[in-house]
Amino acid sequence: MLKGGERLLAFDHAVEHGPDDYFGVDISPERIGKIARLMDGIICHIGIAREVRAKNVIVKLSAHHGMMKQMSQHLVTSVREASDVADAVAVTLYTGTPDDGRMLDMVRQVKDEAHEYGLPLLVFAYPRGKLKHDRKAVLYASRMAQEIGADFVKTYYLGRQSAKEVVDYSFRPVYFGGGDRKPLKKVLDEVRHAASIGAGVAIGRNLWKRANAEEVAKMIMEA
Amino acid sequence: MLKGGERLLAFDHAVEHGPDDYFGVDISPERIGKIARLMDGIICHIGIAREVRAKNVIVKLSAHHGMMKQMSQHLVTSVREASDVADAVAVTLYTGTPDDGRMLDMVRQVKDEAHEYGLPLLVFAYPRGKLKHDRKAVLYASRMAQEIGADFVKTYYLGRQSAKEVVDYSFRPVYFGGGDRKPLKKVLDEVRHAASIGAGVAIGRNLWKRANAEEVAKMIMEA
Amino acid sequence: MLKGGERLLAFDHAVEHGPDDYFGVDISPERIGKIARLMDGIICHIGIAREVRAKNVIVKLSAHHGMMKQMSQHLVTSVREASDVADAVAVTLYTGTPDDGRMLDMVRQVKDEAHEYGLPLLVFAYPRGKLKHDRKAVLYASRMAQEIGADFVKTYYLGRQSAKEVVDYSFRPVYFGGGDRKPLKKVLDEVRHAASIGAGVAIGRNLWKRANAEEVAKMIMEA
Amino acid sequence: MLKGGERLLAFDHAVEHGPDDYFGVDISPERIGKIARLMDGIICHIGIAREVRAKNVIVKLSAHHGMMKQMSQHLVTSVREASDVADAVAVTLYTGTPDDGRMLDMVRQVKDEAHEYGLPLLVFAYPRGKLKHDRKAVLYASRMAQEIGADFVKTYYLGRQSAKEVVDYSFRPVYFGGGDRKPLKKVLDEVRHAASIGAGVAIGRNLWKRANAEEVAKMIMEA
Amino acid sequence: MLKGGERLLAFDHAVEHGPDDYFGVDISPERIGKIARLMDGIICHIGIAREVRAKNVIVKLSAHHGMMKQMSQHLVTSVREASDVADAVAVTLYTGTPDDGRMLDMVRQVKDEAHEYGLPLLVFAYPRGKLKHDRKAVLYASRMAQEIGADFVKTYYLGRQSAKEVVDYSFRPVYFGGGDRKPLKKVLDEVRHAASIGAGVAIGRNLWKRANAEEVAKMIMEA
Repeated sequence: MLKGGERLLAFDHAVEHGPDDYFGVDISPERIGKIARLMDGIICHIGIAREVRAKNVIVKLSAHHGMMKQMSQHLVTSVREASDVADAVAVTLYTGTPDDGRMLDMVRQVKDEAHEYGLPLLVFAYPRGKLKHDRKAVLYASRMAQEIGADFVKTYYLGRQSAKEVVDYSFRPVYFGGGDRKPLKKVLDEVRHAASIGAGVAIGRNLWKRANAEEVAKMIMEA
Repeated sequence: MLKGGERLLAFDHAVEHGPDDYFGVDISPERIGKIARLMDGIICHIGIAREVRAKNVIVKLSAHHGMMKQMSQHLVTSVREASDVADAVAVTLYTGTPDDGRMLDMVRQVKDEAHEYGLPLLVFAYPRGKLKHDRKAVLYASRMAQEIGADFVKTYYLGRQSAKEVVDYSFRPVYFGGGDRKPLKKVLDEVRHAASIGAGVAIGRNLWKRANAEEVAKMIMEA
Repeated sequence: MLKGGERLLAFDHAVEHGPDDYFGVDISPERIGKIARLMDGIICHIGIAREVRAKNVIVKLSAHHGMMKQMSQHLVTSVREASDVADAVAVTLYTGTPDDGRMLDMVRQVKDEAHEYGLPLLVFAYPRGKLKHDRKAVLYASRMAQEIGADFVKTYYLGRQSAKEVVDYSFRPVYFGGGDRKPLKKVLDEVRHAASIGAGVAIGRNLWKRANAEEVAKMIMEA
Repeated sequence: MLKGGERLLAFDHAVEHGPDDYFGVDISPERIGKIARLMDGIICHIGIAREVRAKNVIVKLSAHHGMMKQMSQHLVTSVREASDVADAVAVTLYTGTPDDGRMLDMVRQVKDEAHEYGLPLLVFAYPRGKLKHDRKAVLYASRMAQEIGADFVKTYYLGRQSAKEVVDYSFRPVYFGGGDRKPLKKVLDEVRHAASIGAGVAIGRNLWKRANAEEVAKMIMEA
Repeated sequence: MLKGGERLLAFDHAVEHGPDDYFGVDISPERIGKIARLMDGIICHIGIAREVRAKNVIVKLSAHHGMMKQMSQHLVTSVREASDVADAVAVTLYTGTPDDGRMLDMVRQVKDEAHEYGLPLLVFAYPRGKLKHDRKAVLYASRMAQEIGADFVKTYYLGRQSAKEVVDYSFRPVYFGGGDRKPLKKVLDEVRHAASIGAGVAIGRNLWKRANAEEVAKMIMEA
């Protein structure tokens, strides 16, 4: 059962980013499952969720993909369908887009259904547009997600000060995303800092964009 | 049970306004609950509503946030979900926006469901656009909200004459919002005037934007 | 039970028109109920419908208000909610607007639900735009409303010839609206003419915009 | 029970076309019923369907009217409501408009519900825009309607060759519309030709726009 | 029961393409059924699905047609309706259009309902716009369809290298479409290559646009 502070494998980039992010990489469900089992759990879509055997399987119910013309997330999996394999469900709330209102409606719909099924809801609180990586916007989005009923929040790690602010104004557990590939030392520093302020992490591209993902997963767990 | 005339704590600005309105302030659920218990109740979103222990917990079901590009409210919490912790539910009806029609539909949906659950509905009757603080618009919106079935109405306090008009044309209890930070004397005067014409108040920023919110809460209650 | 030919009080202008049409006038539920009881019934929104004690309470389920930017009606009350107090329900169908299609959908939805609850449906068949007061448009709209299943129709009184045409092409009872304030003699003439061709009336502003509404109500009933 | 080949009375022009097409004509439910009983059945909206006593009452569930600004059909009657009086239900699918997608959704919705009620579905397969009376477009639309599950199809009669093509590529019974008023000989020729290739007809304006509709109805039946 | 690797007849072009693709050709349900029985199954719409007697009847639930102004698919058949005759259901997901979000919602809706009925879902993963026949876009779309829960995927065959990539990154069975008419040798080469990498095929226009479709069907099965 998800408690906060976990170090999770993220695997949604075959939807969000496409082949540029996985070409030449083994992203078979077997390998994804193997890495997930090295960590505290996994965030992925329903297709992979059905294949991996891991603890803390968090099924991402909404999607945006790289060929879409709108900056918007839509539901691709129902809570009912996810409930067969999920320990928790996740949905992304972009803020600062023309489609904010519909996404608020989407969060309500998923939250209502998830709680009916006894599943906790993780909201990815992600500013978009000019304020995508703005400290204040990240703080705003992550607190707001909790106000409107998220059980867990995931947002950007924008440095120690920002991360500390986010956690300080939170009353639900926070996970920080790993973002795009960066030096391994930096990844591990962030993981350690997150842990030191009581937050978890969800690492994807910093694993998948490295040849030795299994080893990096172990390093993240031991950081 | 809500009867009208209560002096309520408002805490929705972590959604509606963002960090500019709370940075540096303790907005932990513990403190929010403490202040709510000094007053007659609280209007807040579901996340906080689950944490506070207070009488008259009014769950705000709709939201607008400061990063949205539309002047519009969307449902972020279902009546069913709120019903576990709510003594009443609230929804905002903006008037004078391009999205008025959809918000009328939203009021109907919430009202129908709230009454099915035996929960009274508080409608925030808020003009927007050029007429945001127009006396006639405020009178129009607050009476209309009652016509279409609100059990309680909250609107702007635009001075004694306006407040009196609003109440005179009301057949349901009215609450006046405290608006943005203003001199304490003015706040207390408004509270007293509201009481003298049988109306309640919902005070948020005038508490949260002051260091000594607990003391101000007591002064409001004793005014 | 509504049969056709009734002389009804209309009270929807606190929604449709706003304070310009009621400022300085006693529009308390008590007075509205008193006048309604002088007449054959009342058309009003759910808020007032819950307060008046009168025969033939027709609850208006859709609304347009004077601050809206769209020429469109949206549902503000569900049939289920109205069913507690309503003898019939009403909905407005504007024709000649960009939103005609959605309003046809709205009529279907209300009609289906109303008939499920055993409530007759009154459709306000109101052309809008250039043809608002066009004889042919009024004839078209009122017959169409009956074709698509209205049990009763309300439309504009555009003179004796027009009113006669509307009734001649009707196979359901017709009510004519009183329109804006006009000389009392004219109002009473229209009421008498409507009666002579088997139609009822729904009088609102010609009562509310007069000091002696109670007396006028009696004159209408005795006309 | 509808089998194909019937010669049907069409009465939907009080919705689709308006007073220009019926002014001065007796379109009382009594007369409509009388003519319907002279023929094999009737296609009409729910209002009239409740009044006529005839075999093969086909209730038109969707509508477009002459004051609409969109070239689009919307549902004005639910299958459930029609099921009290209908032997079959009908819906129009325009092709070549900006609203095609929504109308495909509408066909699915009606089809699903109609079949649940055991009612066959007649689809009016009507191209719109530049290709309204294009042979290929008519052939395309009528076959497509059958592919997606229509039990019966109604389309334009664009001459013998076109009508033959439509029937040749059909695997469900076809009805041809009579179109606007034309010489009686032409009407009867089309009826005969339709019959010779196994198709039925639905005649409206060519009856209603003639003084002696009853006689013409008999001539159509005997053609 | 569909397992992957089947060689299927595709018959949806009377919806997708229109008379230009079938004029002069026998597309009676009898002939379609006959050819389907020569092969491993058929993908078609509900109208034909009700008529053919074949194994592996895959009912296409969404449609786009050649007269539509939008590049978009809408549901024309419900899962419930298809369930009477279907062994599996199919839906098209275009990527790279202004309507991507709604189509993601559509996939979720169909998937949820299909799995409730125990029917596997085949997703046509089809890029549109500039990237329609782009190798990377096809790889992206086909993997994404599996991520979000498709049980089977169908996409374009863009040559041996592309087809191999698609299969290599798949964890569900893949079918390749035959595309437009091309030399028979090429068709058979593609069928053999697909089989060699474990993929199935769905051949439509390369059968229907040939006089001897029955013979070609046999050649495909024996390739």
